[in-house]
Amino acid sequence: MTEHPLIRLAPGGDRRVKMGHPWAFSNEIAMTPALRAIPPGTPVRLEGDDGVKHGVWHFNPHSLIAARRLDADPAATIDAAWYQRRLAACLALRERLFDAPFYRLVHAEADGLPGLVIDRYGDAVAIQANTAGMDAATPHILAALNALFAPRLVVARNDSAVRKLEGLAESVTALQGEGTATVEESGLSFPVDLLGGQKTGWFFDQRANRAMVARLCRGRSMLDAFCHTGGFGLAAAAAGAAKVTLLDRSEHALDHAMQAARLAGFADRVTPLKAEALEHLEKMAASARKFDVVVADPPAFAKTRKDQPAALRGYGKLARLAAGLVAKDGILFIASCSHHVSPGDFTDAVGWGVHKARREARLLATVGAGPDHPVHPGLPESAYLKGLLLHLT
Amino acid sequence: MTEHPLIRLAPGGDRRVKMGHPWAFSNEIAMTPALRAIPPGTPVRLEGDDGVKHGVWHFNPHSLIAARRLDADPAATIDAAWYQRRLAACLALRERLFDAPFYRLVHAEADGLPGLVIDRYGDAVAIQANTAGMDAATPHILAALNALFAPRLVVARNDSAVRKLEGLAESVTALQGEGTATVEESGLSFPVDLLGGQKTGWFFDQRANRAMVARLCRGRSMLDAFCHTGGFGLAAAAAGAAKVTLLDRSEHALDHAMQAARLAGFADRVTPLKAEALEHLEKMAASARKFDVVVADPPAFAKTRKDQPAALRGYGKLARLAAGLVAKDGILFIASCSHHVSPGDFTDAVGWGVHKARREARLLATVGAGPDHPVHPGLPESAYLKGLLLHLT
Repeated sequence: MTEHPLIRLAPGGDRRVKMGHPWAFSNEIAMTPALRAIPPGTPVRLEGDDGVKHGVWHFNPHSLIAARRLDADPAATIDAAWYQRRLAACLALRERLFDAPFYRLVHAEADGLPGLVIDRYGDAVAIQANTAGMDAATPHILAALNALFAPRLVVARNDSAVRKLEGLAESVTALQGEGTATVEESGLSFPVDLLGGQKTGWFFDQRANRAMVARLCRGRSMLDAFCHTGGFGLAAAAAGAAKVTLLDRSEHALDHAMQAARLAGFADRVTPLKAEALEHLEKMAASARKFDVVVADPPAFAKTRKDQPAALRGYGKLARLAAGLVAKDGILFIASCSHHVSPGDFTDAVGWGVHKARREARLLATVGAGPDHPVHPGLPESAYLKGLLLHLT
Repeated sequence: MTEHPLIRLAPGGDRRVKMGHPWAFSNEIAMTPALRAIPPGTPVRLEGDDGVKHGVWHFNPHSLIAARRLDADPAATIDAAWYQRRLAACLALRERLFDAPFYRLVHAEADGLPGLVIDRYGDAVAIQANTAGMDAATPHILAALNALFAPRLVVARNDSAVRKLEGLAESVTALQGEGTATVEESGLSFPVDLLGGQKTGWFFDQRANRAMVARLCRGRSMLDAFCHTGGFGLAAAAAGAAKVTLLDRSEHALDHAMQAARLAGFADRVTPLKAEALEHLEKMAASARKFDVVVADPPAFAKTRKDQPAALRGYGKLARLAAGLVAKDGILFIASCSHHVSPGDFTDAVGWGVHKARREARLLATVGAGPDHPVHPGLPESAYLKGLLLHLT
């Protein structure tokens, strides 16, 4: 049994940790040259200045978030068996939540595995290690996955910008196996590009929201703006939408979407449109064209906290343009995945935009990410996804 | 065509109205003795001090909320045909949202019918008129319902305390027909007591949340605290829960629940427990008894704004007690229907309680009322229902 090195919090540095927060910042730790020499990503025991034991944490002396809690038990040993137990618990929860093996298997802090994201596509898996600790633990994680369900293909999707904060390089590599991946949703099969696509390949977070919107599209016309590989639009087509327009600037993503549409046999009801979505919405607003259902699910407008005011103006403008394209008694679904935009501010911005479009709105639902994207109660800001379902008269 | 009387906003009193807010307060209106003499509930045309026309509103000179917007069109005539058009739009939206005729048909301001609530149970209907305007319009509303789907039974459930603010008496009467009502949900039939039960008889707002919790209960033990007529617990039993405990202080409500359980043929898996729920949770906490799933869905803790701090302490305590009863890797669903408690504050209070119970939590979902309870974008505080689905280790 390994005894992990001991690190002590600075006097008064334990306030948040005692409240159950899963992070300790570098200024909360009594830093010494010896601590600075600990390799980034080492598991350590954390104690308060008062001798209270706070469990075992991943430590990175060069990161603002210097420690991330792994286990409240100060006697825990962070080894291959520990990772296997944690991953088994994540798997058991997903198997309880979903009928088929397509989900986010690990969602970082909320799943007790800080900085680690794993998406599962049946027998293919994408791993994102966003901390030095999880980067170093990748062999353990791979071993745990193989012990649990032996995936055919495992891709390390380590190209997230946050890795830089941990002193990690960006790279995308297959750790195991080869071939392609497929996700099944709404009775459809979508090819997923684990090595070349956006993020970890598929946006599981909107799954329930796609189903919610799709059932309102039967027999109707639908516009999926910022469609990426067409998740909303193709779910709508599968649910019987009369006519779906997919709008995205990425030809690669649209090709993927149309491939899925052909596979499902409804490509004749789906039209791809390659253009900058916001610009094209503005163009369409000038025409008289309307859609019964409009989805606007853009990439994050606020990448950092200081982008927030501009982002809110952006969401207001997007809501105004999108609302203008919705037919009378139609539906608008608009979403934000910006961590730095709060749910209340987003709702206000959308309300402003809809009012500017001179539309009366009923807010039918306020939604977030699905349950395979749990939120840590100490990190409410990790509830990044906000979606509003509106009925417009 | 009736010309409704004209009422003018005070100088500067049009700020919120111009932003799309559906209410005008008494201090925003240029009150005169002539205006004070207008019978409460009269439709009026509202104009700004600048002559801008703001449409037609219900007016009550004796209420703090002096005017409520009915129609943005200043030429609208508020007559039987107007009510029929509005109700037809509400019906069309619900028929698009739901497969069966059991829903909140009208949800006040958000449905363009301020102060009016109508719940539909197939061929039975409960109406709640919470303003002088809607109280006076009841004959029009009844005529519209009869034109649209001719309900067998219509009950005026006018015993809401808010009627007092409008100078209205409380009463519960059958306006049309007789007999009982039934609601169908989760494949079950529940008898609904429109004349004697709580509120309008059934809490449609939690429907989707009941289904969400129920599918996590298969083969498990479940406690439904503050169960009222057993909506959560019986949905769980129908989904295959091994053992359901229904906890409520109302014998009448428990009798209703057990009647539904017998009808569904699973009364042997359901145990009613008559007790003050919070007190009984405290008693159970002292024992070692655990449940795989616990639901805590109490009546509003905060009836007014000044109750808010005590209510937050109450939700914290409830979360602590309920979390303590959840088995390892179990589920807690906790809800608040207090208008005066914000979603963020509720989440914080529950997080505190769960931490005090020394449980690690994953927040799986943050939910609200179903889409038949739309929210008016100008009245975000009308999103009263907040529910948290937590996984506890």
